[in-house]
Amino acid sequence: MLKGFVSFVSSGPGDPELLTIKALKRINSADVILYDDLSSDSILDLVETDKDLVSVGKRAGYKSPKQDDVSKLLVEYAKSGKKVVRLKSGDCSIFGRLEEEIIALKDAGIEYEIIPGVSSIFAVMAEAGIPLTRRNESRKVQFLTGHDIDGNFPNDLKNKSLLDLNATTVVFMAKKNYSVLLNFLISQGLPKSTPAIVASAITKKNQKIYKTTIFKAP
Amino acid sequence: MLKGFVSFVSSGPGDPELLTIKALKRINSADVILYDDLSSDSILDLVETDKDLVSVGKRAGYKSPKQDDVSKLLVEYAKSGKKVVRLKSGDCSIFGRLEEEIIALKDAGIEYEIIPGVSSIFAVMAEAGIPLTRRNESRKVQFLTGHDIDGNFPNDLKNKSLLDLNATTVVFMAKKNYSVLLNFLISQGLPKSTPAIVASAITKKNQKIYKTTIFKAP
Repeated sequence: MLKGFVSFVSSGPGDPELLTIKALKRINSADVILYDDLSSDSILDLVETDKDLVSVGKRAGYKSPKQDDVSKLLVEYAKSGKKVVRLKSGDCSIFGRLEEEIIALKDAGIEYEIIPGVSSIFAVMAEAGIPLTRRNESRKVQFLTGHDIDGNFPNDLKNKSLLDLNATTVVFMAKKNYSVLLNFLISQGLPKSTPAIVASAITKKNQKIYKTTIFKAP
Repeated sequence: MLKGFVSFVSSGPGDPELLTIKALKRINSADVILYDDLSSDSILDLVETDKDLVSVGKRAGYKSPKQDDVSKLLVEYAKSGKKVVRLKSGDCSIFGRLEEEIIALKDAGIEYEIIPGVSSIFAVMAEAGIPLTRRNESRKVQFLTGHDIDGNFPNDLKNKSLLDLNATTVVFMAKKNYSVLLNFLISQGLPKSTPAIVASAITKKNQKIYKTTIFKAP
């Protein structure tokens, strides 16, 4: 039997120049590339025309393949002997549901590798021109998500740790429950002057970034 | 007066293939490159011989330039009209004392940019072949450092949040206070079976990585 191989490739925030050299090599040597809706057009434009480019998008609210189907596709392509690249935006090891796809590959006896990449949060800070930590003021960083599996406001966010002024808190995928989150922070008495950055589509054409305070956030 | 420019370039964990395309471009177009002791030899080997390569290392315990001197050097090179690259390992916005160098540049009226990169923690997870978060078990990630400014065990680490079994905790620069940290976790009753990864010099020639549990950590 032919033996395929899967590379989980972190594509970074969207700017093709923020791909690593290793990621670009894997994209160029793949037979088939599975990507989702967060993948940037500019990166997909790099893919040579001889490759199969397969969308497995599942953006919230749209009809799209389920996670199980994505895993099945990965296994099928690999079993047919293909070199498969599974593109994931940002760094694929954080909030990317990577473990479900890895389990499917392990169950099927298919080998894989992970190529780390530039997490979108680091691109946000680079665009903002400031660091994520400060030697005296911020000695801790915490990463959370803005919604749970069912899209609800997660219990993790109803936590006093979000009010820790010696930490930098990063909420990924905050759009859906954005006003709930702001109202929670306000109700808990977070100082009005707490600096905040609100960003979306970072390094993409439609990038938006606001450097503001928690009480003036758009 | 000539006007220089400073690029803070994240060099990633050490493997030159984990440089971004943008980082490589900046390295190739620089006049002078300031690097510290954490910079990998393999990346420094990429630097063309026509560039000034200046060590500003300050590894703990060794006699080396103070932060103020590094900032002064940056300003001097930029003021002389040079294109300066300030290489920082991993991603430069996290635990890299970036703000002190930025303040010095702002005070001197020198423009700068930040190029984000692959944080060493993402390379650790990639090498380990597992994700940093899991959809059900780990919905939060927290980054801390293993010592404070004076090298002591920081108060942030004497915190119940380290015992949160629904979070993944990452301790950067944990070597110095490693046994203190382990003893703290043990004394606080963290389950013996808690999975742990211990890693150093990731993606470098002398890389060490152990997938273990908190009570079997080397």
